[in-house]
Amino acid sequence: MTDTTTVAIVGAGVIGLAVAWRAAAAGYQVTVFDPRPVRGGASWVAGGMLAPVTEAWPGEEDVLELGEQSLRRWPSFAADLAAEGMDPGLSTAGTVVAAFDSADAGQLDILAGYLHRLGRQASPVSGRQLRKTEPGLAGAVRSGLLVPGDLAVDNRALLRALHAAARRRGARFVAERVRGLDHRTVRTETAEHRFRAVVLAAGAWSARLHPELAGLLRPLKGEILRLRARRTTLPPPSGTIRALVEGRPIYLVPRAGGELVLGATQYEAGFDETVTASGVRELLEGAERVFPSVAEYELTEAKAGLRAGSADNLPYLGVLGDGVFAATGHHRNGLLLAPVTADAALAWLAGAPTPPGVSRAHPGRMRSEERV
Amino acid sequence: MTDTTTVAIVGAGVIGLAVAWRAAAAGYQVTVFDPRPVRGGASWVAGGMLAPVTEAWPGEEDVLELGEQSLRRWPSFAADLAAEGMDPGLSTAGTVVAAFDSADAGQLDILAGYLHRLGRQASPVSGRQLRKTEPGLAGAVRSGLLVPGDLAVDNRALLRALHAAARRRGARFVAERVRGLDHRTVRTETAEHRFRAVVLAAGAWSARLHPELAGLLRPLKGEILRLRARRTTLPPPSGTIRALVEGRPIYLVPRAGGELVLGATQYEAGFDETVTASGVRELLEGAERVFPSVAEYELTEAKAGLRAGSADNLPYLGVLGDGVFAATGHHRNGLLLAPVTADAALAWLAGAPTPPGVSRAHPGRMRSEERV
Repeated sequence: MTDTTTVAIVGAGVIGLAVAWRAAAAGYQVTVFDPRPVRGGASWVAGGMLAPVTEAWPGEEDVLELGEQSLRRWPSFAADLAAEGMDPGLSTAGTVVAAFDSADAGQLDILAGYLHRLGRQASPVSGRQLRKTEPGLAGAVRSGLLVPGDLAVDNRALLRALHAAARRRGARFVAERVRGLDHRTVRTETAEHRFRAVVLAAGAWSARLHPELAGLLRPLKGEILRLRARRTTLPPPSGTIRALVEGRPIYLVPRAGGELVLGATQYEAGFDETVTASGVRELLEGAERVFPSVAEYELTEAKAGLRAGSADNLPYLGVLGDGVFAATGHHRNGLLLAPVTADAALAWLAGAPTPPGVSRAHPGRMRSEERV
Repeated sequence: MTDTTTVAIVGAGVIGLAVAWRAAAAGYQVTVFDPRPVRGGASWVAGGMLAPVTEAWPGEEDVLELGEQSLRRWPSFAADLAAEGMDPGLSTAGTVVAAFDSADAGQLDILAGYLHRLGRQASPVSGRQLRKTEPGLAGAVRSGLLVPGDLAVDNRALLRALHAAARRRGARFVAERVRGLDHRTVRTETAEHRFRAVVLAAGAWSARLHPELAGLLRPLKGEILRLRARRTTLPPPSGTIRALVEGRPIYLVPRAGGELVLGATQYEAGFDETVTASGVRELLEGAERVFPSVAEYELTEAKAGLRAGSADNLPYLGVLGDGVFAATGHHRNGLLLAPVTADAALAWLAGAPTPPGVSRAHPGRMRSEERV
């Protein structure tokens, strides 16, 4: 393909926007289709932890490798975005993982050992030491892990930055829902458009748009809250805090201006984006157990998003058919995996080799296996 | 005064709107001042129980008497509003008071005895019988009280109806904040207006506008949630449910269309309308304990309002000085007390006797006593 090749991108979440920006910057004629660009998908409702490490568990080596590949790309991805005049909202404040009891502490020991074998820094410390890093942690936190390498990104700042950068590079946005793909023809309610290549980045909705993805994606609902510190409260933690509260994982991720993102529930409930009473209650209960000052924070937003779950937690990255490529199924890792996914997409368009780890995420891997 | 007398009403919550409608219908030239009419005050954030009975406790006889006076006026108040072509949103479904343990049950026995002495109907029943009336009540509810006489009103429907009826009768609305009163001159940011009479119905803010009310009102913050039943859940209760959960009073009031209002916290925190994490968490926890299906309801709104608390829970109703009248301090009872307050205001304007119980609410009662 030449640098005047037309490329359609279906979906303007973090994946679609990252591909759009990189492709437009590389000279492709990019058109992005999304009825609710930037704010409509799962990446708008996200914590923004770029954490292959604290997200990883033994047995998910392929997921971890892809995550590490993308994490390595994150600093230059952010720097390139900054060079376009955009603030990617990157934070290097690290993560604290809190343990309440010996069962939690045992899990952290396993995680720490695993991280050390990967050559990553992760220091087991006492609750007292943990509270030196994060003074707002509850007294009931007995021990924990300091993971200074973990990055976090302000998902909304990033989405806005990518959107602006893509438009600045000439990407065109069509605020219409894609009704179907016929090879490289994109059909909306009002028109049909032909392209040289199509990148399908519509998250959980992608499965409805290509037969090769049918049955391979399931929407995983996640509820997230936004809170704001007040004049009379402790400020938010300096970095990300993660913990298990009654077996449920919870995270608190600070944002600029005293904001705090609190997540996340996970349910399999179809295409349902309802915020439930119990979801909100569980998140607030959990957060108060971990970081008690949150009780007096202002609750400013409660929202649900649909993560695109694959069968094995690896995304689907690669050709689906004649000029159509999948860039979906990123589950909880869309923000982390945006740089490597964008690099993979540029490789597909140029017919070049993809980054290490991408080929294992080929959607064809599922053809002979059980569908989800 | 004649029927062309000009009347200013400061505040367009339920009290200001009720007075405006009744006064305009009686032929007065009414001007209502409020920077955020209808939606800006405590009555927009209310459960809407017209419940002098289940709200009453021994020792508050004056509050109860005024409540009974107003409750008696409610049916004709609602009928008159309906005759204007407005739906006041009145519900006659009654109240169920739920008890979890013998301490709660003991309190209900006292309440039932008190109600019987007042000639009101209130039937103590078992948890099983209570669940025949409200099948969604938790199994942990051991006993309770059926109070069939309690009315409830959809506060937002009522506010909209009063606003429309007042305008239809010729009341003029000025969306400006009142900066001060100089006798019967109302001063806003942009102008001064002279009136024959002024009714001060600005809730907790009234104390800033007249020296006779200084120190007599305190804002009492109340947080309230709105939820919505879903296709997969039980519908809301048929009538109001009240309970004590860990010493905190909670109520669930159904609205049309599967909506449920869940209230209310109470804090003294100055002029602060922030919705806090702990307030929301407590309400959700409490509601799930009383009516478990709420867990799967959609959470659609969380909001705080400032009730105008008086020193003794009686409102301040009566003359403050030369042509200026107080109609404020209604605390949790603004919706209940709107009809009797409007009748009192018409009596002031006409120089006629006020309804029974109103004179005891005269703001002058506090002059010799300790201020709040």
